[in-house]
Amino acid sequence: MTEPTRSQIEVEVRYAETDQMGVVHHANYLVWFELARTRLCTRTGYHYADIEQLGFHLMVTGAEVGYRRGARYGDTVQIVCWIDRLNSRGLRFAYEARRGDDLLATGATEHVWVEAETGKIRRMPEELKEPFEELAGEGA
Amino acid sequence: MTEPTRSQIEVEVRYAETDQMGVVHHANYLVWFELARTRLCTRTGYHYADIEQLGFHLMVTGAEVGYRRGARYGDTVQIVCWIDRLNSRGLRFAYEARRGDDLLATGATEHVWVEAETGKIRRMPEELKEPFEELAGEGA
Amino acid sequence: MTEPTRSQIEVEVRYAETDQMGVVHHANYLVWFELARTRLCTRTGYHYADIEQLGFHLMVTGAEVGYRRGARYGDTVQIVCWIDRLNSRGLRFAYEARRGDDLLATGATEHVWVEAETGKIRRMPEELKEPFEELAGEGA
Amino acid sequence: MTEPTRSQIEVEVRYAETDQMGVVHHANYLVWFELARTRLCTRTGYHYADIEQLGFHLMVTGAEVGYRRGARYGDTVQIVCWIDRLNSRGLRFAYEARRGDDLLATGATEHVWVEAETGKIRRMPEELKEPFEELAGEGA
Repeated sequence: MTEPTRSQIEVEVRYAETDQMGVVHHANYLVWFELARTRLCTRTGYHYADIEQLGFHLMVTGAEVGYRRGARYGDTVQIVCWIDRLNSRGLRFAYEARRGDDLLATGATEHVWVEAETGKIRRMPEELKEPFEELAGEGA
Repeated sequence: MTEPTRSQIEVEVRYAETDQMGVVHHANYLVWFELARTRLCTRTGYHYADIEQLGFHLMVTGAEVGYRRGARYGDTVQIVCWIDRLNSRGLRFAYEARRGDDLLATGATEHVWVEAETGKIRRMPEELKEPFEELAGEGA
Repeated sequence: MTEPTRSQIEVEVRYAETDQMGVVHHANYLVWFELARTRLCTRTGYHYADIEQLGFHLMVTGAEVGYRRGARYGDTVQIVCWIDRLNSRGLRFAYEARRGDDLLATGATEHVWVEAETGKIRRMPEELKEPFEELAGEGA
Repeated sequence: MTEPTRSQIEVEVRYAETDQMGVVHHANYLVWFELARTRLCTRTGYHYADIEQLGFHLMVTGAEVGYRRGARYGDTVQIVCWIDRLNSRGLRFAYEARRGDDLLATGATEHVWVEAETGKIRRMPEELKEPFEELAGEGA
């Protein structure tokens, strides 16, 4: 069994992302997760923009976030992303947001492959199968 | 057993809320849910801004969303919100996003009471107990 | 000389729109202006979504905002929008953001008509000419 | 006469920043400009978060943006920022957004120094005078 590939990005907290509690508003974590997911997906050799060029969207069908500690303006946050479930119809990404050793949040998003033109759910495009399986590792 | 109070708001989709898939970006549902939660909370007689004046935040500790259908620019979306769990330490709100008869998304957020000054988790402020219990109904 | 039609919307400040200064982040005014512009445009008999169906975008080429007073969570803000210049190639909208008698911000955005398919600048679609001229009044 | 210090950041376009036109929504440029302004300000030896710790805000009183070409998901955008006017009461930052050799947008924001506690306009904090003058160069 091989481990899933983990990709990490660094995000510098934007002033606009804070709210009047003085911490990053909770909705922004989904935006950060997406940025980390984009980075992970480039490891397949396809930027997610290229995947959309193939005529497919990786549509979000579910999202969950657990918040532990707030991120603040001035902080740099690390987002780690990996695939924790993969099948022919869809996949699930998992995430961790950290500020150094502090775990700020964890999360997951579920996705299905959708044909852009019709909006219908499809199997994973053939050319993406191998690269995504490699990203996911054998445990997924 | 009494039912929880359900509050409904109408949201007109903003162009800025769409993404290049042509639908509302999934992170915006958390923002809409928050707007519906604000409206529900005013039923206690306290605007959420007043609750913050009391020195408390209702900090988000978890969020989840299930996406069924996309909302589009030009749509008006209804967000329904109610309390589906309440105890002295925190509470959970549930949500539905609808476009008329179409269910677009469901969700929930979990919260704890935090003292603004110290950031420590506290019991619910005494003066809010009765109005929140009334909102929650007897099943929560 | 007839006056331009003024359209007004009400916006309830969203928690996510505040920043750590405790007021609405300045970028959100452009989003509010756009919502007011959408409402004004519906007076032509076409929702802006319909205009895009005609194969045109009203692309933003410039924006300016003057900020006088901050809006706060709990506030309801009125945005007034009107056309203050119109010609065959483009138009300029002007805006005021008010909280009752308090003027919070003023602004303007400039736009050109762009053919969606080619991205090229075009003259105003023929069917929109009369309704937009009526909106703009004779001074524009 | 010395030139103002120019600071440059790189921004990877986020999916959430696009709109249904398929380009970055125009309000996001103000958020990017702010990120570049934050980076420039750190050259004074103070992070903008530290300046707020001194009890001051650099409140935005005006903003303007000129849009030339759209940024797309998959793009990396460079934002250059410098001070183009400085006096004891406030300052003006100028910006350019580029994608390599393509100029995407230009802009400026005007700011005054505000005492956080009272919200009153103040002169620039004494300790910041020299570092900001150095950033601005002699032409500002």
